[in-house]
Amino acid sequence: MRAEIISIGTEIMLGEITDTNAAYIASQLPTFGIDLLWVSQLGDNPDRLRETFNRAWERSDIIFTTGGLGPTQDDLTREMVAGALNEEMYLDKEQEQHLREIMESRGRTMPENNLKQAMLIPSSRAIANPRGTAPGWWVERDQKTFIVMPGPPAEMTRMWEHEVAPELEKRATGILVSRTLKTTGLGEGTVDEMLAPILSMTNPSIGIYARRDGIHARISAKAKTREQAWELIKPVEEQARAILGPTIWGTDDETLEAAVGRLLLEQGLTLGIMEGATGGAIGDVMTNVPGASTYFKGSLVAYAQQQNIAMEVPPEVVSKYGMISRESAEAMATIARNHLEADIAIGVTGIAGNEEIENQAPGTMHIALSNGQQFEYSYSQYYQGRAAAKGRAALLALTLLRKHLMNTDQHV
Amino acid sequence: MRAEIISIGTEIMLGEITDTNAAYIASQLPTFGIDLLWVSQLGDNPDRLRETFNRAWERSDIIFTTGGLGPTQDDLTREMVAGALNEEMYLDKEQEQHLREIMESRGRTMPENNLKQAMLIPSSRAIANPRGTAPGWWVERDQKTFIVMPGPPAEMTRMWEHEVAPELEKRATGILVSRTLKTTGLGEGTVDEMLAPILSMTNPSIGIYARRDGIHARISAKAKTREQAWELIKPVEEQARAILGPTIWGTDDETLEAAVGRLLLEQGLTLGIMEGATGGAIGDVMTNVPGASTYFKGSLVAYAQQQNIAMEVPPEVVSKYGMISRESAEAMATIARNHLEADIAIGVTGIAGNEEIENQAPGTMHIALSNGQQFEYSYSQYYQGRAAAKGRAALLALTLLRKHLMNTDQHV
Repeated sequence: MRAEIISIGTEIMLGEITDTNAAYIASQLPTFGIDLLWVSQLGDNPDRLRETFNRAWERSDIIFTTGGLGPTQDDLTREMVAGALNEEMYLDKEQEQHLREIMESRGRTMPENNLKQAMLIPSSRAIANPRGTAPGWWVERDQKTFIVMPGPPAEMTRMWEHEVAPELEKRATGILVSRTLKTTGLGEGTVDEMLAPILSMTNPSIGIYARRDGIHARISAKAKTREQAWELIKPVEEQARAILGPTIWGTDDETLEAAVGRLLLEQGLTLGIMEGATGGAIGDVMTNVPGASTYFKGSLVAYAQQQNIAMEVPPEVVSKYGMISRESAEAMATIARNHLEADIAIGVTGIAGNEEIENQAPGTMHIALSNGQQFEYSYSQYYQGRAAAKGRAALLALTLLRKHLMNTDQHV
Repeated sequence: MRAEIISIGTEIMLGEITDTNAAYIASQLPTFGIDLLWVSQLGDNPDRLRETFNRAWERSDIIFTTGGLGPTQDDLTREMVAGALNEEMYLDKEQEQHLREIMESRGRTMPENNLKQAMLIPSSRAIANPRGTAPGWWVERDQKTFIVMPGPPAEMTRMWEHEVAPELEKRATGILVSRTLKTTGLGEGTVDEMLAPILSMTNPSIGIYARRDGIHARISAKAKTREQAWELIKPVEEQARAILGPTIWGTDDETLEAAVGRLLLEQGLTLGIMEGATGGAIGDVMTNVPGASTYFKGSLVAYAQQQNIAMEVPPEVVSKYGMISRESAEAMATIARNHLEADIAIGVTGIAGNEEIENQAPGTMHIALSNGQQFEYSYSQYYQGRAAAKGRAALLALTLLRKHLMNTDQHV
């Protein structure tokens, strides 16, 4: 099935917003065995919309549009779909009623312009949009499908999940399902070699991807139903898990902070942080996980020069090794552990900016972990801007923490 | 001048990456008076590339492509541009030499496949790419221009800034320049009313935009040269500044944290934070500004229940008013001010998760500021997920701080 996405909006053409809708839809289509061949963006211009819609209706089996469903004269998507199919729009009484009710519930009288949003064509049915006033259109004719959705991402994704995806799944002749295993500590080539015995399979197939948070192995299976596809994945996932073992830290959408949080929770341990150059970024990441308050005690952020000493990093450590050093990071971990009364603590000192400090390069990060008995340590030097340097330090801190928790677990 | 952007990459079509290159280029084109009419994304497929390139060469005056310049057989952009122009590719000796030097400097022998990246056509010249191995192509023929750039955003934006934009500026018959004034504390309608006396102008023209960090007024002028455009903007900017006064907190790309940092620096004041629900996000934002260590002392992040009390929020305040309260936020500001020895401190307590705590709704945030003599306070309740709740609290804290610093300044 040949698919096409068309995103409509003048703000996209002016570069004021990035078209994330197309990427979202693109990521969803493989599940239903739909091949995406064309994506395009257009402003609210009748000639170009007409030309593009006509071409799409000719060459594609299924077309997805987002945007251009507002109540103003600029919003032309409905008119242009009607034009491409050579059908007349009519005011749908049920949609009109629904629209008036929405407006009433908001305490507004309905501008007559808004009636546009209650229009349909003979080949279309309305798709519910509980997050906005504009319903979508599900158009079917000549073995082809035209799915018209609103532009605001919150409205579009809600419509996709609840209305469009279930319908596509019903019609799909095959379903593609994937399981991603996320690893840490291994290079891409190593994962490739380790998985060689199962890499030549075709269904499921396995792909290996280098990502910011490690190497991912994705197992994808195609079958008639979702259940059958999972049955195909299961034994291969078991094989891959046996091969990759504890290098796997998470699956699918799981984040490293969620995976580490799960380990802390399972082991009944609490975490404290003292961070310098990251300015609070590590605490911020840790608290992106619901329920983090059970295991995350807090963070002491010492940013200004001298603040580390004010927070009790021993002056003799600083004068002997420097503030940007393994020894200072270890002292910070100890301080965080004591002050925050945490089982495990991490200390991070480094350089987020683009200038050398204490003869060390921009992006230098010293990361130490303390459990009260011993220290573990990690170092990195990599500079691609402030935010990237801070993000990388957070990633390294989480990786060090996970490694520690995995080892603890084996000793239990 | 009719422009078209074509982004090439199979990962885009699979939804694995979002095409940010097109949005970047789109945002740059208005400066040069270039109208962007078409944007599309395609995989590395010869038939569809050929069809799309042929159509682009026919209908557009200037075409920008990104992606498909790698060394593998999948990378087809060069071949397809050559095809659309019906020209033969040849190996350029100078580019070959350059490529061999790059490889050598990386200590690698050059795979013969990579020679692809040294190819040109008669109508093209190479565009330097110091961040990668693939040069771009600047193609000129029949009054038309075809600009071929690499896909990795770091390579593309570098090439744009240093090579493409200066060349476009030289050729432009008109330059559009904009000045954005960013305001806080006013609604969109109010800014619109206030600027009414100058809103009807056409060159410069003024647009009003509601953004996450306040209402922005953008003054845009078109002229033959950049200097002339700025001359047109200058008096209107002065008028707008006179009207909007101290509600303007920054201009153009300036962030609120940079604007607040500038005020702290000017007034020689230091800042400390104690934050709960935000988990370090406010410290993280403050330290995204180079040089923040001069005025930002640090943050005490108390996340786990009871941690606030451990950090000395008086138990009687918590038992009387609750941890999520104005009084606790004020106590936190006082603690941060004392412990971090800061001139000004901010305390933030609230709910980042989607559950009620102490009978208060998800997204509740209490923000207090202390300068040692008095408190200022801000409150918000708004929930659109954890990250949004934390981000909003950071925005409110910065807004409260700015307001305080502006008042201080008037008293000086």
